[in-house]
Amino acid sequence: MCELLGMECNVLTDIVFSFAGLSARGGRHGPHADGWGLALYDGPVARVFLEPAAAADSALASFVREHPIKTLLAIAHVRRKTRGKVTLANTHPFTRELWGRHFVFAHNGTVRNAFELPLGRFRPMGKTDSEHAFCALLGALHHEFKDTPPPRAELAAAIARHAGKIGKGGTFNMLLGDGDQLYARCSTKLHYLVRKAPFKQATLADEDVSVDFAAVTSPKDRVAVVATMPLTRDEVWTAGEPNTLWVFRGGKLANTLAS
Amino acid sequence: MCELLGMECNVLTDIVFSFAGLSARGGRHGPHADGWGLALYDGPVARVFLEPAAAADSALASFVREHPIKTLLAIAHVRRKTRGKVTLANTHPFTRELWGRHFVFAHNGTVRNAFELPLGRFRPMGKTDSEHAFCALLGALHHEFKDTPPPRAELAAAIARHAGKIGKGGTFNMLLGDGDQLYARCSTKLHYLVRKAPFKQATLADEDVSVDFAAVTSPKDRVAVVATMPLTRDEVWTAGEPNTLWVFRGGKLANTLAS
Repeated sequence: MCELLGMECNVLTDIVFSFAGLSARGGRHGPHADGWGLALYDGPVARVFLEPAAAADSALASFVREHPIKTLLAIAHVRRKTRGKVTLANTHPFTRELWGRHFVFAHNGTVRNAFELPLGRFRPMGKTDSEHAFCALLGALHHEFKDTPPPRAELAAAIARHAGKIGKGGTFNMLLGDGDQLYARCSTKLHYLVRKAPFKQATLADEDVSVDFAAVTSPKDRVAVVATMPLTRDEVWTAGEPNTLWVFRGGKLANTLAS
Repeated sequence: MCELLGMECNVLTDIVFSFAGLSARGGRHGPHADGWGLALYDGPVARVFLEPAAAADSALASFVREHPIKTLLAIAHVRRKTRGKVTLANTHPFTRELWGRHFVFAHNGTVRNAFELPLGRFRPMGKTDSEHAFCALLGALHHEFKDTPPPRAELAAAIARHAGKIGKGGTFNMLLGDGDQLYARCSTKLHYLVRKAPFKQATLADEDVSVDFAAVTSPKDRVAVVATMPLTRDEVWTAGEPNTLWVFRGGKLANTLAS
Protein backbone atom coordinates (compact mmCIF):
# COMPACT_ATOMS: atom_id res chain seq x y z
CA MET A 1 0.00 0.00 0.00
CA CYS A 2 1.04 3.54 -0.60
CA GLU A 3 0.12 7.06 0.36
CA LEU A 4 -1.09 9.71 -2.04
CA LEU A 5 -0.83 13.49 -1.85
CA GLY A 6 -2.28 16.02 -4.26
CA MET A 7 -2.43 19.81 -4.16
CA GLU A 8 -4.39 22.12 -6.46
CA CYS A 9 -4.41 25.91 -5.95
CA ASN A 10 -5.52 29.23 -7.38
CA VAL A 11 -2.16 30.84 -6.64
CA LEU A 12 1.41 29.51 -6.92
CA THR A 13 2.03 27.58 -3.71
CA ASP A 14 4.81 25.38 -2.44
CA ILE A 15 3.96 21.90 -1.23
CA VAL A 16 6.75 21.74 1.36
CA PHE A 17 4.55 21.51 4.47
CA SER A 18 2.38 18.68 3.16
CA PHE A 19 5.28 16.94 1.45
CA ALA A 20 7.18 16.98 4.77
CA GLY A 21 4.25 15.16 6.34
CA LEU A 22 4.12 12.66 3.48
CA SER A 23 7.93 12.14 3.45
CA ALA A 24 7.87 11.32 7.15
CA ARG A 25 5.51 8.45 6.30
CA GLY A 26 7.97 7.33 3.61
CA GLY A 27 10.08 5.14 5.87
CA ARG A 28 10.15 6.94 9.22
CA HIS A 29 6.61 6.69 10.60
CA GLY A 30 5.01 4.61 7.89
CA PRO A 31 5.99 1.40 6.11
CA HIS A 32 6.22 3.16 2.72
CA ALA A 33 9.97 2.91 2.24
CA ASP A 34 10.10 1.57 -1.32
CA GLY A 35 10.19 4.80 -3.24
CA TRP A 36 8.76 8.27 -3.49
CA GLY A 37 7.95 10.74 -6.22
CA LEU A 38 6.80 14.31 -6.58
CA ALA A 39 5.42 15.93 -9.75
CA LEU A 40 5.12 19.72 -9.91
CA TYR A 41 3.29 21.27 -12.85
CA ASP A 42 4.49 24.39 -14.64
CA GLY A 43 1.69 25.02 -17.13
CA PRO A 44 1.10 21.84 -19.16
CA VAL A 45 4.43 20.30 -18.20
CA ALA A 46 5.31 18.49 -14.98
CA ARG A 47 8.74 18.38 -13.42
CA VAL A 48 9.07 15.01 -11.71
CA PHE A 49 11.41 13.96 -8.92
CA LEU A 50 11.59 10.20 -8.39
CA GLU A 51 13.64 7.96 -6.16
CA PRO A 52 13.35 4.21 -5.64
CA ALA A 53 14.25 4.55 -1.93
CA ALA A 54 12.75 5.83 1.33
CA ALA A 55 11.74 9.50 1.25
CA ALA A 56 12.52 9.93 4.94
CA ASP A 57 16.25 9.32 4.36
CA SER A 58 16.50 10.81 0.88
CA ALA A 59 18.94 13.62 0.14
CA LEU A 60 16.86 14.52 -2.92
CA ALA A 61 13.64 14.68 -0.88
CA SER A 62 15.47 16.93 1.62
CA PHE A 63 16.65 19.11 -1.26
CA VAL A 64 13.09 19.44 -2.56
CA ARG A 65 11.87 20.43 0.91
CA GLU A 66 14.67 22.98 1.31
CA HIS A 67 14.34 24.49 -2.18
CA PRO A 68 10.57 24.84 -2.60
CA ILE A 69 9.27 25.09 -6.15
CA LYS A 70 5.91 26.86 -6.36
CA THR A 71 3.17 25.30 -8.44
CA LEU A 72 -0.59 25.32 -9.06
CA LEU A 73 -0.84 21.52 -9.18
CA ALA A 74 1.26 18.79 -7.60
CA ILE A 75 1.02 15.03 -7.10
CA ALA A 76 3.20 13.07 -4.70
CA HIS A 77 3.43 9.45 -3.64
CA VAL A 78 5.29 7.27 -1.17
CA ARG A 79 5.40 3.60 -2.02
CA ARG A 80 5.28 0.33 -0.21
CA LYS A 81 5.46 -2.23 -2.95
CA THR A 82 2.71 -4.80 -3.40
CA ARG A 83 3.58 -5.61 -7.03
CA GLY A 84 6.86 -4.99 -8.85
CA LYS A 85 10.40 -4.58 -7.56
CA VAL A 86 11.93 -1.42 -6.10
CA THR A 87 13.13 0.23 -9.31
CA LEU A 88 12.85 3.64 -10.92
CA ALA A 89 10.49 2.18 -13.53
CA ASN A 90 8.10 1.10 -10.76
CA THR A 91 8.15 4.41 -8.88
CA HIS A 92 5.04 6.63 -8.86
CA PRO A 93 3.91 9.10 -10.05
CA PHE A 94 3.87 7.98 -13.70
CA THR A 95 3.82 10.49 -16.55
CA ARG A 96 2.78 10.47 -20.20
CA GLU A 97 2.15 13.19 -22.80
CA LEU A 98 -1.33 13.31 -24.33
CA TRP A 99 -2.80 16.26 -26.29
CA GLY A 100 0.43 18.24 -25.77
CA ARG A 101 0.31 18.12 -21.98
CA HIS A 102 1.58 15.84 -19.25
CA PHE A 103 -0.83 13.52 -17.50
CA VAL A 104 0.54 12.50 -14.10
CA PHE A 105 -0.82 9.54 -12.13
CA ALA A 106 -0.34 7.98 -8.71
CA HIS A 107 -2.20 5.00 -7.24
CA ASN A 108 -2.97 3.49 -3.87
CA GLY A 109 -4.24 -0.09 -3.76
CA THR A 110 -3.93 -3.12 -6.00
CA VAL A 111 -5.87 -3.71 -9.22
CA ARG A 112 -5.70 -7.49 -9.47
CA ASN A 113 -6.67 -7.77 -13.13
CA ALA A 114 -4.75 -4.70 -14.29
CA PHE A 115 -2.53 -6.71 -16.63
CA GLU A 116 -5.60 -7.88 -18.57
CA LEU A 117 -6.81 -4.34 -19.25
CA PRO A 118 -6.53 -3.39 -22.93
CA LEU A 119 -3.71 -0.96 -23.72
CA GLY A 120 -3.99 1.62 -26.43
CA ARG A 121 -1.17 3.89 -27.45
CA PHE A 122 0.62 3.95 -24.08
CA ARG A 123 2.91 1.15 -22.92
CA PRO A 124 4.13 0.46 -19.38
CA MET A 125 7.87 0.81 -18.78
CA GLY A 126 7.82 -0.98 -15.40
CA LYS A 127 6.01 -3.96 -13.92
CA THR A 128 3.35 -2.49 -11.64
CA ASP A 129 -0.40 -2.97 -11.86
CA SER A 130 -0.55 0.80 -11.25
CA GLU A 131 1.32 1.87 -14.38
CA HIS A 132 -0.60 -0.67 -16.45
CA ALA A 133 -3.90 0.75 -15.16
CA PHE A 134 -2.68 4.30 -15.92
CA CYS A 135 -1.74 3.36 -19.49
CA ALA A 136 -5.13 1.66 -19.94
CA LEU A 137 -6.94 4.73 -18.59
CA LEU A 138 -5.06 7.19 -20.84
CA GLY A 139 -5.41 4.83 -23.78
CA ALA A 140 -9.18 4.72 -23.23
CA LEU A 141 -9.30 8.54 -23.14
CA HIS A 142 -7.34 8.76 -26.36
CA HIS A 143 -9.50 6.07 -27.98
CA GLU A 144 -12.64 8.01 -27.04
CA PHE A 145 -11.53 11.52 -28.04
CA LYS A 146 -8.79 10.73 -30.61
CA ASP A 147 -6.44 13.65 -31.20
CA THR A 148 -8.69 16.44 -29.93
CA PRO A 149 -9.02 17.02 -26.19
CA PRO A 150 -12.65 17.40 -25.08
CA PRO A 151 -14.04 20.26 -22.92
CA ARG A 152 -13.31 19.96 -19.20
CA ALA A 153 -16.69 18.57 -18.16
CA GLU A 154 -16.59 15.85 -20.82
CA LEU A 155 -13.05 14.92 -19.89
CA ALA A 156 -13.94 14.66 -16.19
CA ALA A 157 -16.97 12.49 -17.01
CA ALA A 158 -14.84 10.20 -19.18
CA ILE A 159 -12.16 9.89 -16.48
CA ALA A 160 -14.85 9.02 -13.91
CA ARG A 161 -16.30 6.40 -16.25
CA HIS A 162 -13.02 4.73 -17.29
CA ALA A 163 -11.53 4.88 -13.78
CA GLY A 164 -14.72 3.36 -12.41
CA LYS A 165 -14.40 0.44 -14.84
CA ILE A 166 -10.77 -0.13 -13.84
CA GLY A 167 -11.76 0.20 -10.18
CA LYS A 168 -14.08 -2.80 -10.48
CA GLY A 169 -10.95 -4.97 -10.70
CA GLY A 170 -9.56 -4.04 -7.29
CA THR A 171 -8.68 -1.11 -5.07
CA PHE A 172 -8.18 1.98 -7.19
CA ASN A 173 -7.64 5.09 -5.09
CA MET A 174 -5.84 7.38 -7.51
CA LEU A 175 -4.77 10.91 -8.32
CA LEU A 176 -4.59 12.13 -11.91
CA GLY A 177 -3.47 15.58 -13.05
CA ASP A 178 -3.43 17.18 -16.48
CA GLY A 179 -2.01 20.61 -15.61
CA ASP A 180 -5.52 22.07 -15.59
CA GLN A 181 -7.46 20.00 -13.05
CA LEU A 182 -6.74 17.44 -10.33
CA TYR A 183 -8.88 14.30 -10.44
CA ALA A 184 -9.00 12.23 -7.23
CA ARG A 185 -10.82 8.90 -7.17
CA CYS A 186 -11.78 7.33 -3.84
CA SER A 187 -12.04 3.57 -3.91
CA THR A 188 -11.61 2.92 -0.18
CA LYS A 189 -9.69 5.75 1.43
CA LEU A 190 -9.08 9.38 0.49
CA HIS A 191 -9.45 12.74 2.31
CA TYR A 192 -9.40 16.37 1.28
CA LEU A 193 -9.57 19.87 2.68
CA VAL A 194 -9.50 23.36 1.21
CA ARG A 195 -7.40 25.96 2.97
CA LYS A 196 -8.85 29.47 2.50
CA ALA A 197 -9.40 32.68 4.45
CA PRO A 198 -9.54 32.98 7.39
CA PHE A 199 -6.32 30.96 7.46
CA LYS A 200 -5.23 29.31 10.69
CA GLN A 201 -2.34 27.35 12.07
CA ALA A 202 -1.97 23.71 11.04
CA THR A 203 0.16 21.01 12.65
CA LEU A 204 1.35 17.84 10.95
CA ALA A 205 -0.24 14.67 12.27
CA ASP A 206 3.04 12.76 12.55
CA GLU A 207 5.60 15.50 13.26
CA ASP A 208 5.74 18.46 15.63
CA VAL A 209 5.78 20.88 12.72
CA SER A 210 3.30 23.76 12.45
CA VAL A 211 2.65 26.46 9.90
CA ASP A 212 0.63 29.59 10.50
CA PHE A 213 -0.97 29.86 7.07
CA ALA A 214 -2.36 33.32 7.92
CA ALA A 215 1.22 34.60 7.83
CA VAL A 216 2.11 33.16 4.43
CA THR A 217 -1.08 33.67 2.42
CA SER A 218 -3.24 36.44 1.03
CA PRO A 219 -7.03 36.50 1.59
CA LYS A 220 -7.92 35.26 -1.91
CA ASP A 221 -5.66 32.19 -1.82
CA ARG A 222 -7.30 28.79 -2.02
CA VAL A 223 -5.41 25.52 -1.73
CA ALA A 224 -7.06 22.11 -2.03
CA VAL A 225 -5.10 19.23 -0.53
CA VAL A 226 -5.97 15.54 -1.05
CA ALA A 227 -4.28 12.76 0.88
CA THR A 228 -4.81 9.11 1.68
CA MET A 229 -5.02 9.94 5.40
CA PRO A 230 -5.35 13.42 6.96
CA LEU A 231 -1.89 14.99 7.12
CA THR A 232 -2.69 17.45 9.90
CA ARG A 233 -4.14 16.96 13.39
CA ASP A 234 -5.90 20.34 13.83
CA GLU A 235 -7.82 20.80 10.59
CA VAL A 236 -11.08 19.27 9.40
CA TRP A 237 -10.65 16.79 6.55
CA THR A 238 -13.52 15.38 4.50
CA ALA A 239 -13.46 11.64 3.85
CA GLY A 240 -14.27 10.42 0.35
CA GLU A 241 -17.21 8.19 -0.46
CA PRO A 242 -16.12 4.97 -2.16
CA ASN A 243 -16.53 5.05 -5.94
CA THR A 244 -16.55 8.80 -6.36
CA LEU A 245 -14.25 11.12 -8.26
CA TRP A 246 -13.44 14.60 -6.96
CA VAL A 247 -12.48 17.24 -9.52
CA PHE A 248 -10.45 20.20 -8.21
CA ARG A 249 -9.89 23.44 -10.13
CA GLY A 250 -8.80 26.87 -8.90
CA GLY A 251 -8.35 25.57 -5.34
CA LYS A 252 -11.99 24.46 -5.16
CA LEU A 253 -13.84 21.19 -5.30
CA ALA A 254 -15.42 21.82 -8.69
CA ASN A 255 -17.36 18.59 -8.98
CA THR A 256 -18.00 15.16 -7.44
CA LEU A 257 -18.86 12.38 -9.86
CA ALA A 258 -19.84 8.76 -9.43
CA SER A 259 -16.94 6.58 -10.59
CA MET B 1 22.70 27.95 -29.61
CA CYS B 2 23.18 25.31 -27.02
CA GLU B 3 25.65 22.73 -25.89
CA LEU B 4 25.05 19.01 -25.87
CA LEU B 5 26.57 16.29 -23.70
CA GLY B 6 26.01 12.56 -23.97
CA MET B 7 27.59 9.62 -22.16
CA GLU B 8 27.22 5.92 -22.96
CA CYS B 9 29.11 3.26 -20.98
CA ASN B 10 29.57 -0.47 -20.43
CA VAL B 11 29.62 -0.04 -16.66
CA LEU B 12 27.59 2.21 -14.34
CA THR B 13 29.34 5.57 -14.36
CA ASP B 14 28.59 8.98 -12.94
CA ILE B 15 28.59 11.96 -15.27
CA VAL B 16 29.74 14.45 -12.64
CA PHE B 17 33.08 15.38 -14.23
CA SER B 18 31.67 16.05 -17.69
CA PHE B 19 28.49 17.64 -16.31
CA ALA B 20 30.65 20.03 -14.24
CA GLY B 21 32.36 21.09 -17.46
CA LEU B 22 29.02 21.54 -19.22
CA SER B 23 27.43 23.37 -16.27
CA ALA B 24 30.27 25.86 -16.23
CA ARG B 25 29.31 26.74 -19.80
CA GLY B 26 25.71 27.19 -18.65
CA GLY B 27 26.03 30.82 -17.66
CA ARG B 28 29.53 31.17 -16.22
CA HIS B 29 31.90 30.70 -19.17
CA GLY B 30 29.37 30.33 -21.95
CA PRO B 31 26.31 32.28 -22.99
CA HIS B 32 24.00 29.30 -22.36
CA ALA B 33 22.14 30.67 -19.36
CA ASP B 34 18.53 29.95 -20.40
CA GLY B 35 18.10 26.51 -18.93
CA TRP B 36 19.71 23.14 -18.42
CA GLY B 37 18.63 19.54 -18.20
CA LEU B 38 20.10 16.16 -17.41
CA ALA B 39 18.53 12.78 -18.19
CA LEU B 40 19.95 9.66 -16.54
CA TYR B 41 18.70 6.27 -17.70
CA ASP B 42 17.95 3.40 -15.34
CA GLY B 43 17.07 0.59 -17.73
CA PRO B 44 14.34 1.77 -20.11
CA VAL B 45 13.38 4.72 -17.92
CA ALA B 46 15.09 8.10 -17.67
CA ARG B 47 15.15 10.27 -14.60
CA VAL B 48 15.21 13.87 -15.80
CA PHE B 49 16.32 17.00 -13.98
CA LEU B 50 15.27 20.25 -15.67
CA GLU B 51 15.58 23.89 -14.77
CA PRO B 52 14.69 26.94 -16.86
CA ALA B 53 17.66 28.90 -15.43
CA ALA B 54 21.46 28.99 -15.62
CA ALA B 55 23.16 25.73 -14.64
CA ALA B 56 26.18 27.58 -13.27
CA ASP B 57 24.11 29.18 -10.48
CA SER B 58 21.63 26.36 -9.96
CA ALA B 59 21.20 24.74 -6.55
CA LEU B 60 19.69 21.70 -8.27
CA ALA B 61 22.64 21.39 -10.65
CA SER B 62 24.97 21.61 -7.62
CA PHE B 63 22.93 18.91 -5.90
CA VAL B 64 23.23 16.65 -8.95
CA ARG B 65 27.02 17.20 -9.02
CA GLU B 66 27.31 16.49 -5.28
CA HIS B 67 25.04 13.43 -5.25
CA PRO B 68 26.17 11.52 -8.34
CA ILE B 69 23.71 9.01 -9.79
CA LYS B 70 25.42 6.25 -11.78
CA THR B 71 24.03 5.35 -15.18
CA LEU B 72 24.88 3.60 -18.45
CA LEU B 73 23.40 6.36 -20.60
CA ALA B 74 22.95 10.07 -19.98
CA ILE B 75 22.03 13.13 -22.04
CA ALA B 76 22.53 16.70 -20.85
CA HIS B 77 21.97 20.13 -22.36
CA VAL B 78 22.57 23.77 -21.57
CA ARG B 79 20.40 26.21 -23.45
CA ARG B 80 20.72 29.61 -24.97
CA LYS B 81 17.37 30.25 -26.50
CA THR B 82 16.99 30.97 -30.19
CA ARG B 83 13.27 30.09 -30.34
CA GLY B 84 10.79 29.90 -27.46
CA LYS B 85 10.74 31.61 -24.07
CA VAL B 86 12.65 30.51 -20.98
CA THR B 87 10.12 28.06 -19.54
CA LEU B 88 10.16 24.50 -18.27
CA ALA B 89 8.24 23.40 -21.37
CA ASN B 90 11.04 24.73 -23.59
CA THR B 91 13.88 23.17 -21.60
CA HIS B 92 15.87 20.27 -23.11
CA PRO B 93 16.20 17.33 -22.99
CA PHE B 94 12.69 16.32 -24.06
CA THR B 95 11.25 12.91 -23.21
CA ARG B 96 8.51 10.66 -24.59
CA GLU B 97 7.54 7.01 -24.11
CA LEU B 98 7.56 4.81 -27.20
CA TRP B 99 7.55 0.98 -27.20
CA GLY B 100 7.57 0.93 -23.39
CA ARG B 101 10.79 2.92 -23.04
CA HIS B 102 11.79 6.54 -22.76
CA PHE B 103 13.27 8.30 -25.75
CA VAL B 104 15.28 11.34 -24.67
CA PHE B 105 16.32 14.11 -27.07
CA ALA B 106 18.45 17.26 -27.00
CA HIS B 107 19.22 19.59 -29.90
CA ASN B 108 21.79 22.17 -30.88
CA GLY B 109 20.99 24.50 -33.77
CA THR B 110 17.80 25.81 -35.34
CA VAL B 111 15.53 23.89 -37.72
CA ARG B 112 13.82 26.72 -39.54
CA ASN B 113 10.95 24.73 -40.98
CA ALA B 114 10.44 22.51 -37.91
CA PHE B 115 6.87 23.72 -37.37
CA GLU B 116 5.91 22.47 -40.83
CA LEU B 117 7.10 18.92 -40.15
CA PRO B 118 4.23 16.44 -39.92
CA LEU B 119 3.48 15.23 -36.39
CA GLY B 120 2.28 11.73 -35.68
CA ARG B 121 1.25 10.55 -32.26
CA PHE B 122 3.49 12.91 -30.26
CA ARG B 123 2.58 16.53 -29.58
CA PRO B 124 4.88 19.34 -28.42
CA MET B 125 4.19 20.80 -24.98
CA GLY B 126 6.40 23.85 -25.50
CA LYS B 127 7.16 26.23 -28.36
CA THR B 128 10.63 25.24 -29.56
CA ASP B 129 11.61 24.07 -33.02
CA SER B 130 13.62 21.41 -31.17
CA GLU B 131 10.70 19.70 -29.43
CA HIS B 132 8.65 19.89 -32.65
CA ALA B 133 11.49 18.18 -34.55
CA PHE B 134 11.75 15.53 -31.81
CA CYS B 135 8.02 14.80 -31.97
CA ALA B 136 8.21 14.58 -35.77
CA LEU B 137 11.18 12.20 -35.56
CA LEU B 138 9.54 9.88 -33.01
CA GLY B 139 6.25 10.07 -34.88
CA ALA B 140 8.05 8.99 -38.07
CA LEU B 141 9.63 6.04 -36.24
CA HIS B 142 6.24 4.99 -34.89
CA HIS B 143 4.63 5.43 -38.30
CA GLU B 144 7.30 3.19 -39.87
CA PHE B 145 7.39 0.41 -37.27
CA LYS B 146 3.91 0.77 -35.69
CA ASP B 147 3.69 -0.89 -32.27
CA THR B 148 6.66 -3.26 -32.59
CA PRO B 149 10.17 -1.93 -32.10
CA PRO B 150 12.57 -3.06 -34.85
CA PRO B 151 15.98 -4.69 -34.28
CA ARG B 152 18.78 -2.30 -33.33
CA ALA B 153 20.34 -1.98 -36.79
CA GLU B 154 17.01 -1.20 -38.43
CA LEU B 155 16.17 1.35 -35.77
CA ALA B 156 19.53 3.09 -36.17
CA ALA B 157 19.10 3.17 -39.96
CA ALA B 158 15.62 4.66 -39.61
CA ILE B 159 16.82 7.29 -37.13
CA ALA B 160 19.64 8.24 -39.52
CA ARG B 161 17.15 8.54 -42.40
CA HIS B 162 14.47 10.55 -40.58
CA ALA B 163 16.98 12.78 -38.77
CA GLY B 164 18.71 13.42 -42.08
CA LYS B 165 15.41 14.58 -43.61
CA ILE B 166 14.74 16.91 -40.68
CA GLY B 167 18.33 18.15 -40.87
CA LYS B 168 17.77 19.42 -44.41
CA GLY B 169 15.62 22.17 -42.87
CA GLY B 170 18.36 23.71 -40.76
CA THR B 171 21.07 22.93 -38.24
CA PHE B 172 20.27 19.66 -36.52
CA ASN B 173 23.05 18.53 -34.19
CA MET B 174 21.21 16.21 -31.81
CA LEU B 175 21.49 13.49 -29.22
CA LEU B 176 18.84 10.79 -28.93
CA GLY B 177 18.79 7.98 -26.37
CA ASP B 178 16.47 5.00 -25.97
CA GLY B 179 18.01 3.36 -22.91
CA ASP B 180 19.85 0.90 -25.16
CA GLN B 181 21.93 3.05 -27.53
CA LEU B 182 23.00 6.67 -27.86
CA TYR B 183 22.48 8.24 -31.29
CA ALA B 184 24.46 11.41 -32.02
CA ARG B 185 23.90 13.33 -35.26
CA CYS B 186 26.46 15.85 -36.42
CA SER B 187 25.05 18.63 -38.57
CA THR B 188 27.83 21.18 -38.05
CA LYS B 189 29.60 20.56 -34.74
CA LEU B 190 29.97 17.50 -32.51
CA HIS B 191 32.91 15.70 -30.88
CA TYR B 192 33.42 12.40 -29.11
CA LEU B 193 36.01 10.33 -27.31
CA VAL B 194 36.07 6.91 -25.67
CA ARG B 195 37.81 6.59 -22.33
CA LYS B 196 39.26 3.10 -21.84
CA ALA B 197 42.35 1.43 -20.41
CA PRO B 198 45.04 2.62 -20.00
CA PHE B 199 43.16 5.44 -18.26
CA LYS B 200 44.87 8.79 -17.74
CA GLN B 201 44.26 12.11 -16.10
CA ALA B 202 41.87 14.53 -17.76
CA THR B 203 41.43 18.24 -17.13
CA LEU B 204 38.34 20.29 -17.96
CA ALA B 205 38.82 22.80 -20.74
CA ASP B 206 37.14 25.66 -18.88
CA GLU B 207 37.87 24.88 -15.23
CA ASP B 208 40.97 23.87 -13.29
CA VAL B 209 39.42 20.53 -12.40
CA SER B 210 41.17 17.22 -13.09
CA VAL B 211 40.25 13.59 -12.60
CA ASP B 212 42.71 10.70 -12.65
CA PHE B 213 40.45 8.15 -14.33
CA ALA B 214 43.02 5.38 -13.63
CA ALA B 215 42.15 5.71 -9.94
CA VAL B 216 38.38 5.43 -10.37
CA THR B 217 37.99 2.79 -13.09
CA SER B 218 38.66 -0.89 -13.71
CA PRO B 219 40.52 -2.08 -16.85
CA LYS B 220 37.40 -3.25 -18.69
CA ASP B 221 35.49 0.02 -18.31
CA ARG B 222 34.62 1.93 -21.45
CA VAL B 223 32.93 5.31 -21.46
CA ALA B 224 31.96 7.16 -24.63
CA VAL B 225 31.44 10.90 -24.25
CA VAL B 226 29.90 13.15 -26.93
CA ALA B 227 29.86 16.93 -26.65
CA THR B 228 29.33 19.95 -28.86
CA MET B 229 32.89 21.12 -28.12
CA PRO B 230 35.67 19.10 -26.42
CA LEU B 231 35.15 19.30 -22.67
CA THR B 232 38.78 18.51 -21.74
CA ARG B 233 42.07 20.10 -22.76
CA ASP B 234 44.36 17.04 -22.46
CA GLU B 235 42.46 14.30 -24.30
CA VAL B 236 42.04 13.62 -28.01
CA TRP B 237 38.52 14.28 -29.27
CA THR B 238 37.28 13.22 -32.70
CA ALA B 239 35.27 15.79 -34.64
CA GLY B 240 32.11 14.63 -36.41
CA GLU B 241 31.62 14.83 -40.16
CA PRO B 242 28.56 16.87 -41.10
CA ASN B 243 25.52 14.73 -41.92
CA THR B 244 26.61 11.61 -40.08
CA LEU B 245 25.05 9.73 -37.18
CA TRP B 246 27.19 8.02 -34.56
CA VAL B 247 25.68 5.05 -32.73
CA PHE B 248 27.18 4.21 -29.33
CA ARG B 249 26.61 0.94 -27.45
CA GLY B 250 28.57 -0.66 -24.61
CA GLY B 251 30.93 2.32 -24.42
CA LYS B 252 31.96 1.88 -28.08
CA LEU B 253 31.25 3.64 -31.33
CA ALA B 254 29.19 0.81 -32.80
CA ASN B 255 28.42 2.42 -36.14
CA THR B 256 28.65 5.59 -38.22
CA LEU B 257 25.83 6.17 -40.68
CA ALA B 258 25.16 8.82 -43.30
CA SER B 259 22.30 11.01 -42.10
